[in-house]
Amino acid sequence: MDENDSVSEFLETAVEAAKSAGEVIRKGFYQTKHVEHKGQVDLVTETDKACEDLIFNHLKHRYPTHKFIGEETTAAYGTTELTNEPTWIVDPLDGTTNFVHGFPFVCISIGLTIGKVPTVGVVYNPILNELFTGIHGKGAFLNGNPIKVSSQTELVNSLLATEAGTKRDKATVDATTYRINSLLFKVRSVRMSGSCALNLCGIACGRLDIFYETGFGGPWDVAGGVVIVKEAGGLVYDPSGEDFDITSQRVAASNPLLKDAFVQALQQSE
Amino acid sequence: MDENDSVSEFLETAVEAAKSAGEVIRKGFYQTKHVEHKGQVDLVTETDKACEDLIFNHLKHRYPTHKFIGEETTAAYGTTELTNEPTWIVDPLDGTTNFVHGFPFVCISIGLTIGKVPTVGVVYNPILNELFTGIHGKGAFLNGNPIKVSSQTELVNSLLATEAGTKRDKATVDATTYRINSLLFKVRSVRMSGSCALNLCGIACGRLDIFYETGFGGPWDVAGGVVIVKEAGGLVYDPSGEDFDITSQRVAASNPLLKDAFVQALQQSE
Repeated sequence: MDENDSVSEFLETAVEAAKSAGEVIRKGFYQTKHVEHKGQVDLVTETDKACEDLIFNHLKHRYPTHKFIGEETTAAYGTTELTNEPTWIVDPLDGTTNFVHGFPFVCISIGLTIGKVPTVGVVYNPILNELFTGIHGKGAFLNGNPIKVSSQTELVNSLLATEAGTKRDKATVDATTYRINSLLFKVRSVRMSGSCALNLCGIACGRLDIFYETGFGGPWDVAGGVVIVKEAGGLVYDPSGEDFDITSQRVAASNPLLKDAFVQALQQSE
Repeated sequence: MDENDSVSEFLETAVEAAKSAGEVIRKGFYQTKHVEHKGQVDLVTETDKACEDLIFNHLKHRYPTHKFIGEETTAAYGTTELTNEPTWIVDPLDGTTNFVHGFPFVCISIGLTIGKVPTVGVVYNPILNELFTGIHGKGAFLNGNPIKVSSQTELVNSLLATEAGTKRDKATVDATTYRINSLLFKVRSVRMSGSCALNLCGIACGRLDIFYETGFGGPWDVAGGVVIVKEAGGLVYDPSGEDFDITSQRVAASNPLLKDAFVQALQQSE
């Protein structure tokens, strides 16, 4: 089996895992939910835990030598360092607040890094039945159809996505709303839909033009989406304009034409 | 034909009109669009105009003596006063910015007032295939299934919806972001999805707990949704807590349990 074959097989296996978890999420989405609290705002559900187990078991069974990083596992056992080994980085349920409220932007995000390079990405919204996939060097797809980032060139015509996050200390909230205030004078409008991974996929398929978020949960929120954005012709970068660091909890994304203007606007909004 | 029959027939006719317009919107949504500018941010599309003609022609053919108020017609011919006559109030495409960008929160909103009372409401999202309907005194439905507002009692656990609107003068933008800042300390999180009518329907089916918007386009943004919210057990009111006025371009909605706390939080955010 050559390297291309094995990467394609990795994607297939990840899609299988995502679809299985998607059935669990779809069922829970329409039912009354038992929720526990994780911090003041963030919620973790039984579904979240069940899906992480399901996805990890599926992947570990096929790839017992691979490494695994997941939101729930990290919360329970502490940080797992990202190494050069093939590493699956999984968010079993991105958009848990949406899930609890029944707002239809929820997804499973699965990313595989090899030599720390995001190589395979799967983001699946089981409610809207949208499956975003990408393999490094081989394009990005929505339900099997090729996707590409928007061709927008002007910030003033751009649709911005961001999130209010889960931290509610005064400094964070003030910085968040000051930034939105500053950007509203420069962009067309702002959307907040509550899922970092789906915001990245929104950039990838051109529904959204520019996206930034800081202070999100961890690499599991972005590991799948970054492959899909890049393979759709987009750029993923630090909001400062520097190189993206998957462990930094800071991300910005757009098509290549908007990057410079967007980074400048972000710098002016600090 | 008794009064109930005729109101049910009004709903059926409105659903037919919405579904026809939905086909036009669905086609346009996936194509390259020719857009004209309406103000700095708001956009009007060929689809918008085609859908208003289609819906008005359908309704006028069946109900030649009824009155009609629509966004495009009003823009062209000036304000139409709301009278006691049966009056169809139509937004042929709510979420035009989303439509232009391909963000899937777009809808047709059709409301009928009789004696100035919103009596029939139809809100149809042709992309997600969600049809919200309501008749005064006869319940609210999503794709034919009964819906009700959330049972949330605590503001701190509530999911808030609002919008940044289309005005970009400093006073408006500052007031908008100051209000969001203030509310973020009191609610779980905020969603902005770009359609006033779909935000009302989100309240009606319990996806969202609290919603306010001021400065939106006109009665066409709310005429359909307010029937659906009320029939789902919710309240529609002015953000001040006073009675809702369909001509005021100000709206708030929630379940009855959250109204007092939400109005107080809104007053403290001015």
